[in-house]
Amino acid sequence: MGKTIIEKILSQKSGVDAYAGQIVVADVDYVMGQDGTAPLAIKSFKEMGGKKVFDPEKVVFVIDHSAPSPNEGVSRLHKLMREFRDEHGIDFHDIGDGVCHQVVPESGKVGPGSLVVGADSHTCTYGALNAFATGVGSTDLAAAIISGKLWFKVPESIKFVLKGKLPKGVFAKDLILYLIGDVTADGATYMAAEYTGEAISDLSMDGRFTIANMAIEMGAKAGLMEADEKTFAFVKEHGGRDFTPVFADPDAVYAKILEYDVSELEPMVAKPHTVDNTAKVTEVAGTPIHQAVLGTCTNGRLEDLRIAAKILEGRKIHPRTRLIVAPASRKIFLRAMEEGLIKIFVEAGAAVVTPGCGPCVGTHNGIPSDGENVISTANRNFKGRMGNSNAFIYLASPATVAASAIAGEIADPRPYF
Amino acid sequence: MGKTIIEKILSQKSGVDAYAGQIVVADVDYVMGQDGTAPLAIKSFKEMGGKKVFDPEKVVFVIDHSAPSPNEGVSRLHKLMREFRDEHGIDFHDIGDGVCHQVVPESGKVGPGSLVVGADSHTCTYGALNAFATGVGSTDLAAAIISGKLWFKVPESIKFVLKGKLPKGVFAKDLILYLIGDVTADGATYMAAEYTGEAISDLSMDGRFTIANMAIEMGAKAGLMEADEKTFAFVKEHGGRDFTPVFADPDAVYAKILEYDVSELEPMVAKPHTVDNTAKVTEVAGTPIHQAVLGTCTNGRLEDLRIAAKILEGRKIHPRTRLIVAPASRKIFLRAMEEGLIKIFVEAGAAVVTPGCGPCVGTHNGIPSDGENVISTANRNFKGRMGNSNAFIYLASPATVAASAIAGEIADPRPYF
Repeated sequence: MGKTIIEKILSQKSGVDAYAGQIVVADVDYVMGQDGTAPLAIKSFKEMGGKKVFDPEKVVFVIDHSAPSPNEGVSRLHKLMREFRDEHGIDFHDIGDGVCHQVVPESGKVGPGSLVVGADSHTCTYGALNAFATGVGSTDLAAAIISGKLWFKVPESIKFVLKGKLPKGVFAKDLILYLIGDVTADGATYMAAEYTGEAISDLSMDGRFTIANMAIEMGAKAGLMEADEKTFAFVKEHGGRDFTPVFADPDAVYAKILEYDVSELEPMVAKPHTVDNTAKVTEVAGTPIHQAVLGTCTNGRLEDLRIAAKILEGRKIHPRTRLIVAPASRKIFLRAMEEGLIKIFVEAGAAVVTPGCGPCVGTHNGIPSDGENVISTANRNFKGRMGNSNAFIYLASPATVAASAIAGEIADPRPYF
Repeated sequence: MGKTIIEKILSQKSGVDAYAGQIVVADVDYVMGQDGTAPLAIKSFKEMGGKKVFDPEKVVFVIDHSAPSPNEGVSRLHKLMREFRDEHGIDFHDIGDGVCHQVVPESGKVGPGSLVVGADSHTCTYGALNAFATGVGSTDLAAAIISGKLWFKVPESIKFVLKGKLPKGVFAKDLILYLIGDVTADGATYMAAEYTGEAISDLSMDGRFTIANMAIEMGAKAGLMEADEKTFAFVKEHGGRDFTPVFADPDAVYAKILEYDVSELEPMVAKPHTVDNTAKVTEVAGTPIHQAVLGTCTNGRLEDLRIAAKILEGRKIHPRTRLIVAPASRKIFLRAMEEGLIKIFVEAGAAVVTPGCGPCVGTHNGIPSDGENVISTANRNFKGRMGNSNAFIYLASPATVAASAIAGEIADPRPYF
């Protein structure tokens, strides 16, 4: 019987001929914790009697959620992570290196066929590399750090067939917001979203990461894509080894197959306070904006910064509006400086913060005030997400965020393209 | 009877023939509040029945201490400041513009003979521009915002005559740390420090700001210098009007005249937990350093970044050590990018934070952890200053901070020069 991508990867990693619904114990290729979760995993590691990590080269901790530390409680947790690094010799990214979901792909350690677990819900991002990557709790993370294995219930898959070409001014973020709005926030619960079709092939890797990143926002366990030349070029660029791509069989069984034509898609916005509360940008245009955020593991990559800079170049942000820019990684920050993008942002009036999660998770670097509206390229707009439950978060593409920062209100970016 | 600089400025601004010890009511030329103090001043403004500010072009609020906001309480205070701006049309610097003590000099509104009050203890910085500038409480600030006037007891002056040339690898910061160590933290309480001599003339404006900035650390009400071509060039560069320089009379009366020869000075460090607890760098070399900080109103200027970049170029920071860089202003950030300095820092492993106060005041952007040693270019190392009373702060020059970040321990920077 044919297999989906995720069935193949879990079969390979478990040594079992696995199909959706089965429970398998699989080898993990890379295990990631960030500063919101790694401290709990370290605690669990000790409680489980952990003495050493299964393979120091396959475990990575990233300080990204609160980098640099905004208070002494967080500083203690960071210190705990650094001490674990010193003791066990694991991979480590300290303040300024960037968001885990960018630095892990940049490590070259993840590629087609990899199985990655991370104690962060957006670990599904690496699905864009044809890997099965998923978020786990800190206790599961500790088990994986000790044993190099973890159990999984093999997910069913939904196949998204995305036909057509995205119009000008419409981007991967608009597409994934549209899909989440359509299938709803729990429409793919515990399933693997398999994305295919011309619209995916046409996307850069940066665009694909945006799509895979938000699989969890429809409840999915993973968001997967096939590997192509762009995938291999990305892995090679970051010094990765040769990976064997994993394709779905033609007779694989899917829970659903959903087809979309993207050629008439318009810029989309997720309105407060759920990601699937989507609307066309034209429906919410004119909503006053107090803070605009460009960055995060969803849209802080080089292509995102280029798109925003194209709009912001030679312009100033609206006096009512703050613009916070958080490049997703040190490498991206450096490239963006070389290309003059950071200069454009700073001249436009932006506050550029340290590469990392920026204000996305509400720990620092731009907490909105009461009654304020935020437009952000991030992946979540839950009430209180950014540290203030009296603020209102709209999610959109880098283009829409940049256009809105200039207008001081939600604005359609298409006139810029 | 001859007058000191401060006696002349206070005479001009009060219309009274004023000498040390007298109380005068003087016109203020510029009134500054930052996000730690402006909210309290706004409250006092309202309590005093304030309806409008005496002159919107002579009042400025700067969001620099916690920029961007690290928590919702701070966000509310920022909002209060923005609402005051909207209501009164005052000058305003929002997140990303920089530290008040850099953006005020950059405004061109302060120059020789100006009288400036700011609700920040390091307002004395502008004394480098031959201005009388001093820190006041939020209530006094509110009074000045309403009336454009404030009362002062005219300070006595101490004259520092600084002869000789600073050796290579020894900078303005080393000089002021040495002086504070010598006169002690309360050695100039409520006096005006008047700096003169070849060592001051030789300094760039950036170096002079460093000296003036720390006058308060010896208890002084102000730190003043005479105006020269460098002063006028600085004011002109920033679009300032013509100011009339104020010189001390030859027969001015000083509380003390202290002479120093700086030509044998060595790099200095202030050890925890007081600024006057100074030592030669060679006495503390080898102390492990966990966090290094380059920036603040003391040493986040272009010359400071250039000096640190000269040392860091092509090198990496020590794995034990984090390096946080906070350019003092948007303009400085842009210039530092143009000159390639930011690239050098980021490639060396630094975390560059938004222009502003950075971690200096312990509100965000790099709170140290328990038991950690910090070396910083800031002006205060009091217990708990950076947000953790179990950390140990050493103050030093940008050169010493950069050399220490590379070594992972306090290091003498002179071998780099």
